[in-house]
This record gives sequence, structure tokens and C-alpha cells, in this order.
Amino acid sequence: MLTIKSRAHDYTVENFPDLASALITIPAQRSWFLIDKRFSEFYRPILDQAVPANRAVYVEATEEQKSFEALTPIFLDLLKRELKRDGLLIVIGGGVLQDIGAFIATVLFRGLRWELIPTTLLAQADSCIGSKSSINIGPYKNQIGTFCPPNRIQVTSSVLATLPWDEIRSGLGEVIKLQLLSSEKGFRELMDDLKSWRKTEDREQKAVAAIPAELLSKWVSRSLEVKKPYVEADEFDKGIRNILNYGHTFGHAYESATHYGIPHGIGVVLGMLTATYLSVRLGLAEVVHYQELKTMLQPWHEPYSNILRKGSRDEIFQAIKHDKKNTGQAVNCILTRGFGRMEKMPVPLAEQLVPAVNDFIERECGSA
Amino acid sequence: MLTIKSRAHDYTVENFPDLASALITIPAQRSWFLIDKRFSEFYRPILDQAVPANRAVYVEATEEQKSFEALTPIFLDLLKRELKRDGLLIVIGGGVLQDIGAFIATVLFRGLRWELIPTTLLAQADSCIGSKSSINIGPYKNQIGTFCPPNRIQVTSSVLATLPWDEIRSGLGEVIKLQLLSSEKGFRELMDDLKSWRKTEDREQKAVAAIPAELLSKWVSRSLEVKKPYVEADEFDKGIRNILNYGHTFGHAYESATHYGIPHGIGVVLGMLTATYLSVRLGLAEVVHYQELKTMLQPWHEPYSNILRKGSRDEIFQAIKHDKKNTGQAVNCILTRGFGRMEKMPVPLAEQLVPAVNDFIERECGSA
Repeated sequence: MLTIKSRAHDYTVENFPDLASALITIPAQRSWFLIDKRFSEFYRPILDQAVPANRAVYVEATEEQKSFEALTPIFLDLLKRELKRDGLLIVIGGGVLQDIGAFIATVLFRGLRWELIPTTLLAQADSCIGSKSSINIGPYKNQIGTFCPPNRIQVTSSVLATLPWDEIRSGLGEVIKLQLLSSEKGFRELMDDLKSWRKTEDREQKAVAAIPAELLSKWVSRSLEVKKPYVEADEFDKGIRNILNYGHTFGHAYESATHYGIPHGIGVVLGMLTATYLSVRLGLAEVVHYQELKTMLQPWHEPYSNILRKGSRDEIFQAIKHDKKNTGQAVNCILTRGFGRMEKMPVPLAEQLVPAVNDFIERECGSA
Repeated sequence: MLTIKSRAHDYTVENFPDLASALITIPAQRSWFLIDKRFSEFYRPILDQAVPANRAVYVEATEEQKSFEALTPIFLDLLKRELKRDGLLIVIGGGVLQDIGAFIATVLFRGLRWELIPTTLLAQADSCIGSKSSINIGPYKNQIGTFCPPNRIQVTSSVLATLPWDEIRSGLGEVIKLQLLSSEKGFRELMDDLKSWRKTEDREQKAVAAIPAELLSKWVSRSLEVKKPYVEADEFDKGIRNILNYGHTFGHAYESATHYGIPHGIGVVLGMLTATYLSVRLGLAEVVHYQELKTMLQPWHEPYSNILRKGSRDEIFQAIKHDKKNTGQAVNCILTRGFGRMEKMPVPLAEQLVPAVNDFIERECGSA
């Protein structure tokens, strides 16, 4: 069990062997449920055991749901089901459900107790702690949000073992990032363990993960241990926590310029490679460090670097310029001097950043 | 200058002789403005001096504006005007503008610095401190909201002196409530000062206030001094702060059952009389106390008790039952044992509350 300190209230991350064991700890008679629709289809019998039918609202986990228009019927559904201010909201799903659930729990009755059962690697290993939520408005993505940690997080790696392969790789992007921020030792141990992470095909012949549950559980825990001190020291992301954005300025731009053809965590992997490449060009990191990372990370982003290569370069630079972290003619980037030695610094846009990103995409990505 | 402690950040209430003096303290070059449309029409030349035209969004101060649908274009307007996370939001208006501004400042960029220039007696003397915001959703009023204090409040009583008379009386309801909560001495001093509060008629022959600015200023300050310890001790309204709801369970029901034919603060005055009447029937307060209050408060609610008398009794009891503070067959009421001696206690609905409210409205309100 991990305890996270927060201005609002401390909260815990608790591990369970399976979903049913996690659900049994929930006081069903004073709880209301917000559940990822797709997840519920896979776990219907277990959920039916634990969730009173008249207390559950099912939500599609899409970006479109993260808007005031789409949230309104969810609020109304919960109110119609007589959720009251002393009720407990249980959120079961990945990042989108967490964003929606955290937002609702912050503003309904000016704040509601809530608990989170994250069901993706990304949510379990990264986003579940740190208390951020993000909502879209009009054309502006993630510009609305709150800081509102759950009162408790229940993690069970058993629900991850059969996720689609790219969903696993997307979560893994943040797991890799956290070990790069941590130490060379942590990163190399992760790379060793990843050798046994395999994909297989399900009945519909889609690529799904086939990973030992104890390895998933190990790297979920290790990731949260790395992230914890950052979010405790700087919950509201005004200083040291910015380091966790390593790879994200570029990653977000790659996601958006490919119209989300690149999953988030895979964008982050490509973004970290870009940041390392830029760091080499700025004389901060050695080229052998970049080359080693490039080789080691390739299996975890291919073939998405091809998609990046085909994306609009204009849209990439527009997105970098409009990144909510920027102000003037320089872009605040998290750069690297090597394992565990990341630093935030401004990089002049026209003189340094644009040529480096152009060269990275043309020379380093996909097949030339 | 008054300083209020808050979990988010301490904040100050500063007094200014007039609007121009308050506006001059605002760093216009890094500020964006949310302004009550009607107020802006009265103070156009002064606002034009201080507010860059491309940084101001004007909002109608109506209940309909307090919804996600109506807020969306306001968010988008601010974003289009290039408000960034390091910008400062200046909110100028009464309670509705405060609700909207506080909500936007809580959730835009996960929190934005904001300052408030309250322009009604109710906002200056009561709602500006305590950090609550309220938004409506579908048929549910004020069920959405946040706790988000402004970073600074600039008060100038000069903008109150010409408000519509009922707007002054509505704010006065909360001023009276705070003195009743405070002490017999404070309440009697207020009642003495009120003898000089007059209404007059404007060019359009509407009733407007004609009140010495120093008396408005005095009772704004006195009110905030009474409220301050409650909101500091219990910012999130889980205990002692509930006392500030004195008169509100009934007042809200009267407002809603008359479809807002009764202004908020005047509903509170009628609600406090109801609570005192009920307290007498429950053996808590003496009948002479009720009778004295009834006589003294009459000028500050007439002729609205007639409107209450004509309102639907069913809707009143429905509203009381659905009050967000209630749970079962008893209603949590703030009752009184006399000046400064209010207490929260459950009152059985059918046996005690319903007959007392019926008798209050039939025997004590309007012309029989």
C-alpha cells in the first residue's frame, strides 16, 4: 500500500489480486458507479455481483465524452439516481473515465468523496496519482480541469493482462519515461523485464498482450514510487513536477498533428527520443546515449514513427507553439543530460527547435 | 483591510472610495475582465479608462447564465481573447457574476488567479468571502460548484448608493442575518442606523436607494467581520458554518415556490421570521422575541409576505424536503434561542415543521 500526500487529503493506492477482491471492499449501499462501457462488457458477471443495477452509469471512453455537453447527461443521470452529497462515487475505467469522474467529483455538491479502480496500464502506473483531471472545450483540448485526488485507488493488474497490445504499449510509454527520470539502473532493469512482454492474437485476431501479471504489478508499483515524490512536492505543477512532462511537448504535438493516429504513450516515447536528439544538438547529452535509446525503444513505438513522418509538419509546429506551457518565442522543453538528469530550459523556436525536430523526423523516423 | 484565511490561499478585502480608485490597482496588461452587462452600462466611461476593450467579456446577470450551456461561450470568448494560464481574471458584478467567475477561475487551466469587485450589497457584505460558487444543471439549482476564493476583493460602497431599492433590501437580508447571529447590541445598532435608509425615485420613477455611503460601508465591514470566523473555521461548510444558513432553508423554499418572485435576501428575512416562529413553538425562544423581530423587520420584507401567502404551499414543502442539506423524515433547521444563540437541529417534518410553516404563512404573513 502506497500513501500519497495531497493538500485536499492523503490517499492510498491498494493492491488486489483481482477485480472481485477490489470490488468487495466497496460499501455498495452508499456508492454510485461510473463505469467504462467497454470494460463492463468484459467483466459483466463480476460487476453484476458488486454493483447495484440502479446505481451504475456506463460511459463510452472517448475524447468526445470529455466536454460539458457530454458530461451534462452524466451529471443528470447520477442526480436522477438520487446520488446525494454523502454518497461515494466509484469510478472504474482508464484515463477518460478518470478525467470525467474526477471532474464530477470536484464540482458536484462542491465536492464528493470518490474512489478509482484504474483499468489501463497508463491509468494504473501513472495518471491515477497526482490528482489532475482534464476536460475539452470547443477546439481547446484539456484546457479545463481540476486537481482532485480520489479518496482511495484500488489497483489490480489482473485486468491488464489481456488489453490490446497498443494500449499496453501506450501505458508503457509513461512507465519507460518514469524509469528514464529515475536512474540508469531502473531503466536497464525495465528493459530486461520487457524482453518477456509478448503480444498474441485473440479470437478476432487482434494483437493483445500476454504478460505475466507479476511483471505488470511490479512495474505499476515501481512507476508510482518514482512519480510519488514529484506530485507530493509540487501537486499543482508549478515547479519540479514539470519534469514529468518529459517527452510530452513533442508527444502531444505528434498526437495532435496525426489526429490522434499515435496513441498517447507512444507519442511520449517518440517525444522523449526527440528531446534526447535535441539535447545532443544543444551539447547537453552524448550522441551514444541517444543512439542506445533509439535502438532500445524502437520495438515500443514502431510502426508509429512512419505515421509521424507522414503527419503535417505545420500542424506539429502549430501545436508546439500553442502548448499551454509556453509563452513567447522560446519553448520550455524538458531536456536531458543522461539517465535521471532531466532539466527544464527554454529553447529558441526558430533557431534551434524547428530545425532539430525537422531533422529528427526526416532522418530518424520511419523508412527514408 | 481584512484578511481571510483559506486552504487554497489567504486573501484580502480592500476598501476604495470609488470604482476608478479600485480599478487603478489592477495590472491591466495581464488582466482579462468578466463584467456584469447592466453594471457596465452605468459605469461605461470609468470602465473604458481602465479595461482594454479586447480583454472584456460582458455577461447578463441571470440565473440562466449559471449553466454549462451558457458558460461554454464565455470560456471560449476568454480563450479566443488569448487568456493564458498566467493571466489574471477580474470579475466585476454581483452574485451571479461571482458564481460564474469563481467557477471559471477554478476549472480553466486547472485554476487561474482571479480578483473580485462586488457591485451589489449582497455580494459585498456576504457572498464575496467564503469562496463558494454555484452553478445549475437541468432542473437542479446550485448543485454544481466549487470552493475557490478570489486572490483579492476590492470593495467600494460608492457603487451601491444608487441600486434599486429591492436590490438593497435583498442584500440587507443577509446583513440583518449576520447581526442576529452576532449579538443583540449589533442588531439594535443596525436597526437604529436603518432609520436613515431611504428610497427615492429615479428618472424612470423606479424605487432606488438613497443611503449615506458611510453607512453602507460601515455595515459591509461589520457583516464581513461577523462572517469571517465562520468561513475560516469551516471553509467547506461541514460544521459550524452551517449556522450561516439561518433563514435559508425556508428562504430558499419561498424563493423557489414563488418562482423567484421573492428576492433572495428578502426570502431570508421571511425565512428567519419562520425559524423564530418555529423556535417559539418548539419552546426554544420567547414569543416576545418573535413579536419584536416581526415588527422591526416588517419594512424590510413588505409587500413580499403577500406574495408568499399566494405561493403554492405544496411547492414550499417539496422544496424544503428536497433541500440539499436534508436526508430523511426530519429537516435540519437552524433554530434560535435568542440573539446570537442559533443552533442546528432536526425538526420532524410532518409533526412539527409543516403545521408551523402553514400557521406562519396563514396567520403571520400579508393581510388575512
